[in-house]
Amino acid sequence: MAEALKIGIIGAGRIGKIHAENIARFIPQAKLEGIADIRLSPEQESWAKGLGARIISKDPGDLFKDSSIEAVIICSSTDTHADMTIAAARSGKQIFCEKPVDLSVPKVKEALAAVQKAGVKLQIGFNRRFDHNFARIRRYTLAGEIGEVQIVKITSRDPEPPPPAYVAVSGGIFIDMMIHDFDMARFQAGSAVTEVYAAGAVLVDPEIGKAGDVDTALVTLKFENGAIGVIDNSRKAVYGYDQRVEVFGSKGAAAAENDVPNTVRLSNAQGVSAEKPLYFFLERYKQAFIDEMIAFIDAVSSNTATAVSGEDGLEDMYAALAAGKSLKEKRPVSIAEIKQAW
Amino acid sequence: MAEALKIGIIGAGRIGKIHAENIARFIPQAKLEGIADIRLSPEQESWAKGLGARIISKDPGDLFKDSSIEAVIICSSTDTHADMTIAAARSGKQIFCEKPVDLSVPKVKEALAAVQKAGVKLQIGFNRRFDHNFARIRRYTLAGEIGEVQIVKITSRDPEPPPPAYVAVSGGIFIDMMIHDFDMARFQAGSAVTEVYAAGAVLVDPEIGKAGDVDTALVTLKFENGAIGVIDNSRKAVYGYDQRVEVFGSKGAAAAENDVPNTVRLSNAQGVSAEKPLYFFLERYKQAFIDEMIAFIDAVSSNTATAVSGEDGLEDMYAALAAGKSLKEKRPVSIAEIKQAW
Amino acid sequence: MAEALKIGIIGAGRIGKIHAENIARFIPQAKLEGIADIRLSPEQESWAKGLGARIISKDPGDLFKDSSIEAVIICSSTDTHADMTIAAARSGKQIFCEKPVDLSVPKVKEALAAVQKAGVKLQIGFNRRFDHNFARIRRYTLAGEIGEVQIVKITSRDPEPPPPAYVAVSGGIFIDMMIHDFDMARFQAGSAVTEVYAAGAVLVDPEIGKAGDVDTALVTLKFENGAIGVIDNSRKAVYGYDQRVEVFGSKGAAAAENDVPNTVRLSNAQGVSAEKPLYFFLERYKQAFIDEMIAFIDAVSSNTATAVSGEDGLEDMYAALAAGKSLKEKRPVSIAEIKQAW
Amino acid sequence: MAEALKIGIIGAGRIGKIHAENIARFIPQAKLEGIADIRLSPEQESWAKGLGARIISKDPGDLFKDSSIEAVIICSSTDTHADMTIAAARSGKQIFCEKPVDLSVPKVKEALAAVQKAGVKLQIGFNRRFDHNFARIRRYTLAGEIGEVQIVKITSRDPEPPPPAYVAVSGGIFIDMMIHDFDMARFQAGSAVTEVYAAGAVLVDPEIGKAGDVDTALVTLKFENGAIGVIDNSRKAVYGYDQRVEVFGSKGAAAAENDVPNTVRLSNAQGVSAEKPLYFFLERYKQAFIDEMIAFIDAVSSNTATAVSGEDGLEDMYAALAAGKSLKEKRPVSIAEIKQAW
Repeated sequence: MAEALKIGIIGAGRIGKIHAENIARFIPQAKLEGIADIRLSPEQESWAKGLGARIISKDPGDLFKDSSIEAVIICSSTDTHADMTIAAARSGKQIFCEKPVDLSVPKVKEALAAVQKAGVKLQIGFNRRFDHNFARIRRYTLAGEIGEVQIVKITSRDPEPPPPAYVAVSGGIFIDMMIHDFDMARFQAGSAVTEVYAAGAVLVDPEIGKAGDVDTALVTLKFENGAIGVIDNSRKAVYGYDQRVEVFGSKGAAAAENDVPNTVRLSNAQGVSAEKPLYFFLERYKQAFIDEMIAFIDAVSSNTATAVSGEDGLEDMYAALAAGKSLKEKRPVSIAEIKQAW
Repeated sequence: MAEALKIGIIGAGRIGKIHAENIARFIPQAKLEGIADIRLSPEQESWAKGLGARIISKDPGDLFKDSSIEAVIICSSTDTHADMTIAAARSGKQIFCEKPVDLSVPKVKEALAAVQKAGVKLQIGFNRRFDHNFARIRRYTLAGEIGEVQIVKITSRDPEPPPPAYVAVSGGIFIDMMIHDFDMARFQAGSAVTEVYAAGAVLVDPEIGKAGDVDTALVTLKFENGAIGVIDNSRKAVYGYDQRVEVFGSKGAAAAENDVPNTVRLSNAQGVSAEKPLYFFLERYKQAFIDEMIAFIDAVSSNTATAVSGEDGLEDMYAALAAGKSLKEKRPVSIAEIKQAW
Repeated sequence: MAEALKIGIIGAGRIGKIHAENIARFIPQAKLEGIADIRLSPEQESWAKGLGARIISKDPGDLFKDSSIEAVIICSSTDTHADMTIAAARSGKQIFCEKPVDLSVPKVKEALAAVQKAGVKLQIGFNRRFDHNFARIRRYTLAGEIGEVQIVKITSRDPEPPPPAYVAVSGGIFIDMMIHDFDMARFQAGSAVTEVYAAGAVLVDPEIGKAGDVDTALVTLKFENGAIGVIDNSRKAVYGYDQRVEVFGSKGAAAAENDVPNTVRLSNAQGVSAEKPLYFFLERYKQAFIDEMIAFIDAVSSNTATAVSGEDGLEDMYAALAAGKSLKEKRPVSIAEIKQAW
Repeated sequence: MAEALKIGIIGAGRIGKIHAENIARFIPQAKLEGIADIRLSPEQESWAKGLGARIISKDPGDLFKDSSIEAVIICSSTDTHADMTIAAARSGKQIFCEKPVDLSVPKVKEALAAVQKAGVKLQIGFNRRFDHNFARIRRYTLAGEIGEVQIVKITSRDPEPPPPAYVAVSGGIFIDMMIHDFDMARFQAGSAVTEVYAAGAVLVDPEIGKAGDVDTALVTLKFENGAIGVIDNSRKAVYGYDQRVEVFGSKGAAAAENDVPNTVRLSNAQGVSAEKPLYFFLERYKQAFIDEMIAFIDAVSSNTATAVSGEDGLEDMYAALAAGKSLKEKRPVSIAEIKQAW
């Protein structure tokens, strides 16, 4: 067996903790060497010690400098992703970066250029590609069971809207929420998006409208291979996190239902009832967070391409920007138009 | 196309009406010629006229005498089934008789002997064999998809108990209710029952216990081909008519869920809910009542064996009697023992 | 009980036969008085006799002239619907007309004007509103279980494409196929469509493309009440007739799955399998055809508004025309724009 | 927060490894102090080191002697369970013991007496009580949603039979396999078993018959509270591990379906298909193994009764012995009869 990949984690917030604990518990082919967070609290420090991290620091540079660390996982705040990626690339580290790389296209391009120049690998944290359900649909397609993909339908609804204050700095529903679905759409279609048309509305919380965003959106997609698709987003599904995908093709269709906490059905005088879907992304995508990390480590170890490249992240951002423009200008917007603008 | 089979119906109660209307509406290969009911009311008479019956009478003999009538459907009260069968056989009519032929084994045997002597066909009204779900399971088995049948499980629960007064004269839960399931068990196993063991309890209504019966029962079955089975009955499932069958074998298992009034699932903050199963046998077995009649007419027209023979009815009764004896004597009872006793 | 409504049927093709037989068999509150078909064959004549029709004719005028006939059901070819409607209205008959009233908006308006002038009732044959699943969703919404409707999603796919020759004269996928879904969308949203955006592709059969149509389409809808929606159509789902509706709102969501021929699941070494949905509209909407007719008869008998008015038919046509224009001009098209054009 | 409970594990086979890794990874409220296995291999030693065990030994006595170890988990071979339990009790350790405590009732009683005398806690490894599905059913019952429990149905089938050599020393299907289901039955009924009747057959593998056992069994249960139940076992379900429970009562019924690897349904020209249930107990009861351990640690920490007591284990064994006797003597056997015999 190959030696465990030595990993440093930047950012000890919610997602950083998940990755750190997953590596410590479930991924023997990796070793957690260091954890850096510019606002490292005593609690975080003690937690990091408990996981056996050798380097625990407020300076991510300590990870970049450490010659034994082979890869870094960037989980710091979004506005630092690009700079961290560039610094990591320059220090020759393999990189796993949470999405998005940046909200600005030029900044993303700069980061990708640094990665390319350094010849290191970069994987973006679109973990849903690794979900047991959605990955199964893709395998059906790749196995030819669906035939030519014709229609991709994605339902993606959150259980609760974020606070309006967050919405204001989030980049908007397309960048903040639907970007995961754009990635899923391209993944399932096996093709690039060429054009989007966005319908949106403020139906959940007027404050979101005041913050300049919509909370309900429906985007039509056209793909390079001729397929068409649709994504719908709502910031609030009272029954919980609704995450479904359907791929329809010339030979069949594959559709994933939500995951549930248990399979029990209760039948009584009122009817037959079951529980709501798993509450939110931490529950639903628990295993997907592990599996994306294993895939990253495998790509590094076997020197093969990562499952979600920096270019994937950029393409998803183009789609999100096009959707925003479409909503604003009330017309379909091509990805080519967005690319030209940048 | 062959000429329509001319049919007379004896008994214009609930089940007689169903058969009459099914023939009038859905079965062009049969023609409703006559309806007889010894307590024919003016309403029934007017209903019979509306269906185009040529003979409408209080005397079933009028149907037996009529030379154009080729077949009779016996839907009169249970205590008259055997005599009607004998009279019908003697007049050379083909016979469809509602279950059971009689509550007394010698009487059943007498009726079957009359049928055999007359060389007419007899089909017993075990309509559930024709249910779209249960018939599908059987076709899977016959197609070899299940392999050797090893376990048969039948769930059969009513939405409401009958009035205690009815229970007292019903012959008991095994004769009155579970007899359908014994027939289903033999049908699905493709084999005769050799032994039963019955557990029973009064859990629904103490009045049923006072009437000398149980309202909840669970019967273990052994089949000639080595398979084993179980039937459970309850007189009261608050969520409605629960009718499920599962056949497990060496190559797989087939299981039927209940039929529902619609497929809609409502998801809200409380959970995910659906409607109860179809209310009772009239709703659930609506099409099965039609299909058993078509099968009877086909058997007559093509001069082939009926799908549910008089011997089937007798075998089911043996199983029911054995179950009653088992419950009383708290021991497994073989069918051979019952046969010997009669 | 009121006297049965006396009905004449115009057109003895597939759909005319369904309505005639439904009335004869299942709808005692109506009486089939006459059947007219300009190309009446001997077989059709004999079939009409078998149903007890008093007037059997090649001239629909014979039905209009007959003073005892109170209502007519127009099932003749689409190009005659408007003229038949006008003639029926002028003769004072209540009218049930199969969809669409006409492919030309002015002609539809002329027919509706005649209906209004005559003061008779008109119901359009959008039978899916009466489907047990879709009607159940609507009832949930009306009962407040969904809250404010926010998103309506309709999946509607045929098992087989029509012959290209038919496609050429069909009016195109939006008029011929999706018009049912526009009606369903308005019905479920409880609101008028204000704008549509259509994406379409030729993915099933190049001949359909040569005939100037698409065979795969996805239409985004905006409703007057602020809700948004999406319909997807395919002319060919290899697994059969795919007819699903989902309504999402502030308090919950209701979703209908396909109907199936039976509930049996077969589990074996390969996996767990079930049967395909009911094959096509005759099977799937069997009961809906009956229920729409009962609703029509009820509206006439109780002198209340019909469930699907002539204006509904016109609104659905506007949506279809807008979708066609949107596809052609690659831009969202408002219903107002279409209305102004006519 | 309380200090982590210090645990020693006896037996480093399959189940010992699962418990050790679960404690190390998921249960911060426990600390793995030592691992002992009388046949400890170098691989096991290195594995134990990797988990941070302080004591790694071939002698379980090293764990009993260590004063810092507070609790032991007994996962050694079945024939050593009772002696280990006695030794652990005498050294004052809290005890979690895999099922069964022993195949001999006197030996079990001896172990329970030692536990009682020492005043330590004992939990038996009936992990299925902690399964998310089955625990949910029980919670429904406890919440009053089922009303009075009337019928308990348990389906429990393995994907593959064990080798005949194993069968010969296993104690037979009732002790080796169905004992889990007896425990589940008592758990769900909330009541003791008073009588069983067993039907069994050799339908899977004649070698199992030659080893003196059956491979297919169906046991009827009577409970003290008046409920009745049934368990069916098969050593080989070709579609995988089939683990379902249904509880039916006066107010409703709760039923758990199998767990599946993903929710995807593939629809094509052949039908609609889904994947088989999770393969076997390691996959299906993965979380239940963790949750039973957490429950044990909680019971120790809070000084409350364990969820599955030694008496539970003894009761389950009585049921299994009664079933064996019933099968052999072809009659129902009461638990009282078994208890008297011992």
